[in-house]
Amino acid sequence: MKISVILGHPDEKSFNHAIAETAVETLRENGHDVAFHDLYREKFPAILPAEEIPRNAALPRIIRRHCAEIAAAEGIIIIHPNWWGQPPAMLKGWVDRVLRPGVAYTFTEGDSLGAGVLIGLLKANAVLVFNTSNTPPEREASVFGDPLELIWKNNMFVSCGARSYYRKTFGVIITSTLEQREKWLREVKEITSRHFPATPA
Amino acid sequence: MKISVILGHPDEKSFNHAIAETAVETLRENGHDVAFHDLYREKFPAILPAEEIPRNAALPRIIRRHCAEIAAAEGIIIIHPNWWGQPPAMLKGWVDRVLRPGVAYTFTEGDSLGAGVLIGLLKANAVLVFNTSNTPPEREASVFGDPLELIWKNNMFVSCGARSYYRKTFGVIITSTLEQREKWLREVKEITSRHFPATPA
Repeated sequence: MKISVILGHPDEKSFNHAIAETAVETLRENGHDVAFHDLYREKFPAILPAEEIPRNAALPRIIRRHCAEIAAAEGIIIIHPNWWGQPPAMLKGWVDRVLRPGVAYTFTEGDSLGAGVLIGLLKANAVLVFNTSNTPPEREASVFGDPLELIWKNNMFVSCGARSYYRKTFGVIITSTLEQREKWLREVKEITSRHFPATPA
Repeated sequence: MKISVILGHPDEKSFNHAIAETAVETLRENGHDVAFHDLYREKFPAILPAEEIPRNAALPRIIRRHCAEIAAAEGIIIIHPNWWGQPPAMLKGWVDRVLRPGVAYTFTEGDSLGAGVLIGLLKANAVLVFNTSNTPPEREASVFGDPLELIWKNNMFVSCGARSYYRKTFGVIITSTLEQREKWLREVKEITSRHFPATPA
């Protein structure tokens, strides 16, 4: 399967990078065709300009490439830290520019009525989201309401046609031991393999 | 009062810009000291680099200026479209870089235990958020779960110490008439004046 892995974290020594490396290795071991984007390392241009808002806008080559890749992806893995209940701006900008109308979704006929009903265009069978957090899970649920679940699941991937969706948050990172982090990476490997198993030769 | 108005929309002909102009005019009519930032027009550098993650990081002058301004603001108005249940990356990057530890919040003692409890440092008495949307409100609530409410209220401004918070979403924009938009702008004026009334001379 063609799988896109999208990472949004500025520090290459971060646990997010370790998660991404583990996921990519696992996918390759399982025989998949992996497109890995460390958006910071690639200096992805994350700010959508006004002229890209129209549906039929002319796009720069880098955005066209990202759009073609995500449209063809049979699986997607997103990896980022929880910053204010949202992804870092770098990854939000990838969403803004790449998950475009005509690529990730279109509208039902009669959209001119403002019904806001999307038709998903992504062909990805499975979407995984791996997050890191420094907020304990009970506080995230009770005080902050975990907007990342709404954002990635309801607002994005279910709307865009993904047939299965799974999200896992690792934390609290800041106080974690090496042993915990190693255990978490084994979990990343297990989750990745479960959703994207090796294809029989 | 010192009021910061932060706008995140790429198109200067957008209804978001009309909202911002109305809010700024109303504040000035009421005698307030307004700092208005059209982040796109100012080409705000929205991508937080790794070296700014540490609490005591050295900051570029533009970020220091934004931090000092928001720390001193007695009121804050945020204006942006609902893009995927989140602000555009441009505005998310302003949040990432400006609402820093030591500026917008600090941690309780014993943070090394990973309790994740913030102490708000903002002195803003009131925060307003004006959003625009092309999703009808009933669909936003039932299908998407309105993550923007969680994001701005629970995750950000209440955590950072704002004593009053009010958010209003205008829409559906795409199908609105001129008359509706004029009515909405009168509402912007009324809400702004209610929260930031004229100070007696």
